[in-house]
Amino acid sequence: MEAPPYATSRVEVTRVPSGGVDRDVVAVEEPLEIRIGGAPVAVTMRTPGHDEELALGFALSEGLRPRAARASADLAANTIELDADGAIAARSFYTTSSCGVCGKGALDAVRVEAPPVESDLVVSAALLAELPDRLRAAQAGFEATGGLHATGLFDEGGELLCVREDVGRHNAMDKVLGWAFGQDLLPLSRCVLCVSGRLSFELVQKAAVAQCPVLVAVGAPSSLAVELAQAQRITLCGFVRDGRVNVYSESGRIGSA
Amino acid sequence: MEAPPYATSRVEVTRVPSGGVDRDVVAVEEPLEIRIGGAPVAVTMRTPGHDEELALGFALSEGLRPRAARASADLAANTIELDADGAIAARSFYTTSSCGVCGKGALDAVRVEAPPVESDLVVSAALLAELPDRLRAAQAGFEATGGLHATGLFDEGGELLCVREDVGRHNAMDKVLGWAFGQDLLPLSRCVLCVSGRLSFELVQKAAVAQCPVLVAVGAPSSLAVELAQAQRITLCGFVRDGRVNVYSESGRIGSA
Repeated sequence: MEAPPYATSRVEVTRVPSGGVDRDVVAVEEPLEIRIGGAPVAVTMRTPGHDEELALGFALSEGLRPRAARASADLAANTIELDADGAIAARSFYTTSSCGVCGKGALDAVRVEAPPVESDLVVSAALLAELPDRLRAAQAGFEATGGLHATGLFDEGGELLCVREDVGRHNAMDKVLGWAFGQDLLPLSRCVLCVSGRLSFELVQKAAVAQCPVLVAVGAPSSLAVELAQAQRITLCGFVRDGRVNVYSESGRIGSA
Repeated sequence: MEAPPYATSRVEVTRVPSGGVDRDVVAVEEPLEIRIGGAPVAVTMRTPGHDEELALGFALSEGLRPRAARASADLAANTIELDADGAIAARSFYTTSSCGVCGKGALDAVRVEAPPVESDLVVSAALLAELPDRLRAAQAGFEATGGLHATGLFDEGGELLCVREDVGRHNAMDKVLGWAFGQDLLPLSRCVLCVSGRLSFELVQKAAVAQCPVLVAVGAPSSLAVELAQAQRITLCGFVRDGRVNVYSESGRIGSA
């Protein structure tokens, strides 16, 4: 599998200690300006491609109600128009906060309301343990560059429904959620999300917004990722490697079969 | 070496397939609200500890002129007051942009002006190749959790001056820059910065603001990281592993001795 041409580029590299000069493939990183009603609301550093999905997933993650997203005709313009309802100014994307004097206030400033995930999905540990390898096998851009995060959406049988790569782990997840939105697959009550790296608060929040009951990662979770997963009743699995899975919350969804 | 107690916490984990339940150490992730003159200007998700350094480094990275930072007396409040000069509203930290209709405009929105780095520093390839191991040896929190990024500041002889860890790679770098600011070590014209992960635009920008001539990473650079390093005349080294170094810009600073 090859990465899409706009997701990678070639740069000159000097290899030490050999001293040889040749070309290396790197992941493309470019800013994307997201607009609503023509007014810029966010700039994110992302890997080009699936920009509409990215904008839709971003909107969902921010608690907006998106309808559509449309990239500008000139792709190099790196702007996208988002058609969405909802308040955006108050939260301002992690940057300003109207909160009071406590840490809870700061957390409220970055938290999006979503109900706890209700799903009777049960997946086997053996299947979960296989997902990172399945995701990696679909990561064309990582193979080429070593510099792209990925999110994969799997059905309950472990079939890969969608994979997206990006220099930003949150963008890869947003693209997958935007894809699912476009396919009318939300809420993701019978699905599993798998990410290539570590699990931050932000990624758990996105899974919560999408109402996905199981979130799996190759890497380590943060403290707040675990807390939020517990609060949102998401099964959070980390360090999924070599047939082993660490389950940090809602382990009842892990079957032994 | 042990990680500081506030940087890690213990959570319950179910280990599959064994089914055993015990405790696992995870990296702490909490929001920090940064204020100027009492008004919130940013919320960043960070690992507690060295918050003053983080706020100072953040200010430098955003093109402000910081004087001091002071955490609230109640540490759990997760707020810090930053004393700094400079315009902050226009750029609004990657989130809004007053730019026009082109990608260049979006890039301008996230770019902080800094002069190209002037430094006649030359470091040997052999020394550079050792830095990731030296950094890793000082990463107490990563050892414990597997979930913390690190930035190390080295002098030209390869001595580690400062290491900081954080769930956010940009925060780890900001903490190091804030430490250097407090030690009156800026500009870092005779130093090398080494990061544990990948190289994004943002990290190169921080090195540029600190006027550090050499930036080294264990992981891959993005396209924009390479472009910005070239423009700012920073020697950018990636994939520093097993005695090899990929040099993406300003290779003249790499000596063979």
